[in-house]
Amino acid sequence: MEVFWTSGYHGTSLPDLLQATRLSRGSLYAAFGDKHGLFLRALDRYIDEALARLDAELDRRESALAGLRTCVAGYVERTSGANGKRGCLVVATAMELAAHDAEVERRIRRFFKGMETRLTAALVRAQRAGELAAGVEPANVAHMLLCLLEGLRVVGKTGPNRAASQAAADTLLDSFAR
Amino acid sequence: MEVFWTSGYHGTSLPDLLQATRLSRGSLYAAFGDKHGLFLRALDRYIDEALARLDAELDRRESALAGLRTCVAGYVERTSGANGKRGCLVVATAMELAAHDAEVERRIRRFFKGMETRLTAALVRAQRAGELAAGVEPANVAHMLLCLLEGLRVVGKTGPNRAASQAAADTLLDSFAR
Repeated sequence: MEVFWTSGYHGTSLPDLLQATRLSRGSLYAAFGDKHGLFLRALDRYIDEALARLDAELDRRESALAGLRTCVAGYVERTSGANGKRGCLVVATAMELAAHDAEVERRIRRFFKGMETRLTAALVRAQRAGELAAGVEPANVAHMLLCLLEGLRVVGKTGPNRAASQAAADTLLDSFAR
Repeated sequence: MEVFWTSGYHGTSLPDLLQATRLSRGSLYAAFGDKHGLFLRALDRYIDEALARLDAELDRRESALAGLRTCVAGYVERTSGANGKRGCLVVATAMELAAHDAEVERRIRRFFKGMETRLTAALVRAQRAGELAAGVEPANVAHMLLCLLEGLRVVGKTGPNRAASQAAADTLLDSFAR
């Protein structure tokens, strides 16, 4: 997962994978089929971990809005300065492979859907608790937040400063908070 | 440019480039140095065209806010359905190469800076014309819009429907319009 994350699918060679896994060529093929099979396993793991982290960030007992702020702050942290240059395996894979590879496209779609579902649920909880401005539509705001968070990943590749990202994110959050 | 846009840098082979340019190997190397040199020329052209399009979209005589709405509508159009799967050479390159390649990183940074400068200027014009809500900070909203637009590119890779993207974008625009 780390190798694909750093170098991308096409940028990763079989020798890179053999070195990282400390497997022989025969063992790697026996365990994962081929490079593509290993990549799908790595992508599944990355997606599962990212969705579990999102669940943890959104699970704030004091308020659903606090959970959304924690989630956004986490993305700001992960997309600023040196962290930002690392990037995101899902976004890189969406751009590199999703249009040509149905198995990858299905996984990327599952991830975005999983994020959007969780963000919508948190916004519905916030709305029920009276934390949102009048007229806010949770599904619309969730789709907008999903795009903003994935956009932070892209812009983060040039390592912007944290203050600019946090100010932009706060502006968005404040626009729908009561 | 079209070949790199479709297949990415590492996913493009020399035979792909020879076929697309109808050049011999010798002529291609004489004209562009190598694959990397040709890629930088293609990326420069893509960036120049994208910034010229943004200038045209933002240049609406009747109002600066109308220009911003035209710009966002253009991104929604280009990132929905089949168009969305095509994606964006800048975003794909940011994810694939920006962390490892200083010449690429400089170009991606120039593009994001160019977009942000133009969006900020349009927001300042809108503010002077009384089109923005009280308390809106043009630089913050411009950074947020940049992230939203690049995020639409990422999420667009799974071909979302236009209505969801337009509704999310309208929610954002309405949050800072008067």
